[in-house]
Amino acid sequence: MKEIPVIENVLKLNDEVASLNRQTLREAGVFTVNLIGSPGCGKTALLEATLSRLKGRMRIAVLVGDLATARDAERLSRRSDQVVQINTGKGCHLDANQVRQALKRVELHRVDALVIENVGNLICPVGFDLGQDIKVGMFSVSEGDDKAAKHPHLIHESDLLILNKTDLLPYVPFNLQQFREDVATLNGAMPLIELSVLQGQIDPWIRWLSDVVRPGRGSAEQSR
Amino acid sequence: MKEIPVIENVLKLNDEVASLNRQTLREAGVFTVNLIGSPGCGKTALLEATLSRLKGRMRIAVLVGDLATARDAERLSRRSDQVVQINTGKGCHLDANQVRQALKRVELHRVDALVIENVGNLICPVGFDLGQDIKVGMFSVSEGDDKAAKHPHLIHESDLLILNKTDLLPYVPFNLQQFREDVATLNGAMPLIELSVLQGQIDPWIRWLSDVVRPGRGSAEQSR
Repeated sequence: MKEIPVIENVLKLNDEVASLNRQTLREAGVFTVNLIGSPGCGKTALLEATLSRLKGRMRIAVLVGDLATARDAERLSRRSDQVVQINTGKGCHLDANQVRQALKRVELHRVDALVIENVGNLICPVGFDLGQDIKVGMFSVSEGDDKAAKHPHLIHESDLLILNKTDLLPYVPFNLQQFREDVATLNGAMPLIELSVLQGQIDPWIRWLSDVVRPGRGSAEQSR
Repeated sequence: MKEIPVIENVLKLNDEVASLNRQTLREAGVFTVNLIGSPGCGKTALLEATLSRLKGRMRIAVLVGDLATARDAERLSRRSDQVVQINTGKGCHLDANQVRQALKRVELHRVDALVIENVGNLICPVGFDLGQDIKVGMFSVSEGDDKAAKHPHLIHESDLLILNKTDLLPYVPFNLQQFREDVATLNGAMPLIELSVLQGQIDPWIRWLSDVVRPGRGSAEQSR
């Protein structure tokens, strides 16, 4: 049973570095989102659309985690000059130290919001604090209506849940009512935003983000 | 740096139990598939269709891993009386010992093939041997054409790759040629099967499975 104390140490060390990240980000007035979703649920596409939509209104930096390739960073860097790709190799989640290293590449004094796009994985990223203000969970319709019920920890830990690809509802079996009920049962206080990035229908997310991030005045979190 | 030897011990212990599983399964003449894919790529739906299609021709048992709920086992148990659900809690993959425990619930003497539907996750399951004969990786079109390139370890480790949901090709951005090229670059020897479970188009998979599994005569693997 040797592994248990070691794992606790790893998590404890992670939490300490996450606290440092949180302090750094709050002092810089940067509101930080940890975006956790399945592979291919549309995280990068949502961020592309968000950067375009909020251009000139909100300065957004992105850290993006993947096992391999810099494809996501290349896509996003067309829309923001503050994008850092973190390649984790075989690593199944981002940890606070990877974020700490990546933050050295970001000019925080000219950033209003930081989105950390975690590695596409509904499980391992949930347990690792990165220093974010909020966690946003994300699914897509094509994954099936059972995914909330199957991932209760993500639902419990998230401050907001996004359901993407509503444009595919006519083509896939998905009971929207069942999905909504599962979400409400697991975390009744958490808002659920349904959208279609492909069709540019992201207004509720833009409104939500604009409400929590207050450019130039620090984050809503700080002003409480 | 204490965690490294401990992780090695965990993997070593896993491999030892996996070897025992492999021995048990081969002695029973059961061909075993470790099915690894993203959440919602259609693993359970493929197995439902497979059980229906091969009813009376191949006796298939299924072990199915999920963090929570018995929904997949309930779906599958309508089509096979040898289905075991393994709930992993926060565990991001199945390990050999979980499989060993679950095998006690299976009457191996009346099984030709065992499919282990791993936890929906493209990363962590790849490193854990369960005692399978082959690993099958699985993606779906709706996840995007970059998923092979982003998950090279899964591609390297798989003996067969399935791309599901080709019925959605008209509705999502997916460059099939790019996907095929990425797969061929990463693992040129591995066959790629493209199918649509929703539309019942699973013939290439049924042919492939029928070829490797020889009911009543032990698996192809054994007869080599």
